[in-house]
Amino acid sequence: MSNSTGTLAFIKAHGTENDFVVVIDTDDALEQRGVFTADLVAALCDRRSGIGADGFLRVARVNDRWFMDYRNADGSIAEMCGNGIRVFAHVLAAFGLEDRTEFEVDTRAGIKHVTIHEFTPSHAVVEVGMGRVEVTGVSTARMGEFSFAGLGVDVGNPHLACVIPGMTPDQLAAKEFTRPVFDAEFFPDGVNVELLTELHDGAVHMRVWERGVGETRSCGTGTVAAARAALADAGIENGTVTVNVPGGAVTVAINGDEATMTGPSVIVARGEVDLVSVAGSAPGI
Amino acid sequence: MSNSTGTLAFIKAHGTENDFVVVIDTDDALEQRGVFTADLVAALCDRRSGIGADGFLRVARVNDRWFMDYRNADGSIAEMCGNGIRVFAHVLAAFGLEDRTEFEVDTRAGIKHVTIHEFTPSHAVVEVGMGRVEVTGVSTARMGEFSFAGLGVDVGNPHLACVIPGMTPDQLAAKEFTRPVFDAEFFPDGVNVELLTELHDGAVHMRVWERGVGETRSCGTGTVAAARAALADAGIENGTVTVNVPGGAVTVAINGDEATMTGPSVIVARGEVDLVSVAGSAPGI
Repeated sequence: MSNSTGTLAFIKAHGTENDFVVVIDTDDALEQRGVFTADLVAALCDRRSGIGADGFLRVARVNDRWFMDYRNADGSIAEMCGNGIRVFAHVLAAFGLEDRTEFEVDTRAGIKHVTIHEFTPSHAVVEVGMGRVEVTGVSTARMGEFSFAGLGVDVGNPHLACVIPGMTPDQLAAKEFTRPVFDAEFFPDGVNVELLTELHDGAVHMRVWERGVGETRSCGTGTVAAARAALADAGIENGTVTVNVPGGAVTVAINGDEATMTGPSVIVARGEVDLVSVAGSAPGI
Repeated sequence: MSNSTGTLAFIKAHGTENDFVVVIDTDDALEQRGVFTADLVAALCDRRSGIGADGFLRVARVNDRWFMDYRNADGSIAEMCGNGIRVFAHVLAAFGLEDRTEFEVDTRAGIKHVTIHEFTPSHAVVEVGMGRVEVTGVSTARMGEFSFAGLGVDVGNPHLACVIPGMTPDQLAAKEFTRPVFDAEFFPDGVNVELLTELHDGAVHMRVWERGVGETRSCGTGTVAAARAALADAGIENGTVTVNVPGGAVTVAINGDEATMTGPSVIVARGEVDLVSVAGSAPGI
């Protein structure tokens, strides 16, 4: 997927407006040539001087299984991304790399089971096994003058999911969202904070502050934490919750301490990026 | 540059990190079919669900002359963009549409003379005649607790360019930049505000708050206003100023009440965007 003129084939796609630059490297040739340095990934993800994205996905194969090589926009290695893995599965189908509708994808957070429920080259609906969901206790946090309580939920990463009694979706949308002050003893590695409405007709509205990032339009593991907290708040053990986020909606099914998330993937564009333009040079290309 | 599957060929490029989605429509066919509605342009410029850009450039020809059809990221019509016209000229050369190095480009703010000084398909250095620069007086503004004075400069649009005595580039970079409070009688249509260092070795450092947008990494007309103010502050009538902005550097030459700006253009990528994915439908395609 590259040629000798310093260009690299890319795909731009998003899941609930969590967006990605995707590169197909099934034979691992680009990675083995050392193309994807942290600097190059950061340059590709720069929204003004590069393509622009929240993260970078490399489609690879390791030990005869798909491997999602996910990096943050700053080029650092990341473990797993619930919105990214839907896009990953969609790209496999859209580019003719996988014709099964159910298969496994390896990630740095372990093997995930994906199911493609609907599919066109532009749009897909993909279900992902998100693994274990563990409630770790109750804690409180504060944004400016506004204090609130929530459920600590571990979905591989730490969350504080806070149902705000009586809050309407409009009130949530209008809320001033600032860096949350949380209990650093309870969350020694920091925490992602979700504010959400109470469960109503099987649905909640959520906004999320991602640690190290700020407010985002969507956070896959955050929707799982939100669903867990909304069900607990409603006194329900297992169930399915539609979680509306600023970037769209996903459906989370909680069954015991396991969760699946089902949501959209949209492939926006494909093209060739000039690596000399974005990074000054193109080693390995 | 389109096909029947709802895709549209695009180019992503930037001038001092002011970035653009560019579409080549030399025969005006796409425009005549009504493709580029405000909604579609806004969807293309959306940074998460589209390609993402500060603005949209359509390469067109009107009356046997190049016409830069420039739109803001919200889809509204715009008159002129000093960074955009360098990218426009670069695209003409890079895609084999123009082999002269000097030619005229029509814009909604009149005909502009461009000169391509350096050129590769990835990078170019382009000089643009920016037209008349008129000093309109002296005014003051405020950001938070910080008050400052500057020169009102009209470059087709209104500017308040403020040389801050003794400020270093590092101090400028560290400054908290907030929405400026200005004299609404002096600037009834609002104003773009530049803060800049004093002229030193023919160069200044500048940051800019664009009206209706917020802080940006570059503003073409703002660099012209800044050069005018820096020269006036140094007691110089005509001269050349290198204006360093967060997104790079341009050179502005002031000669009487005329200005030219010389700066880079970088073509980052080319590709095909799926209009159904970004806008839900693709009328005219």
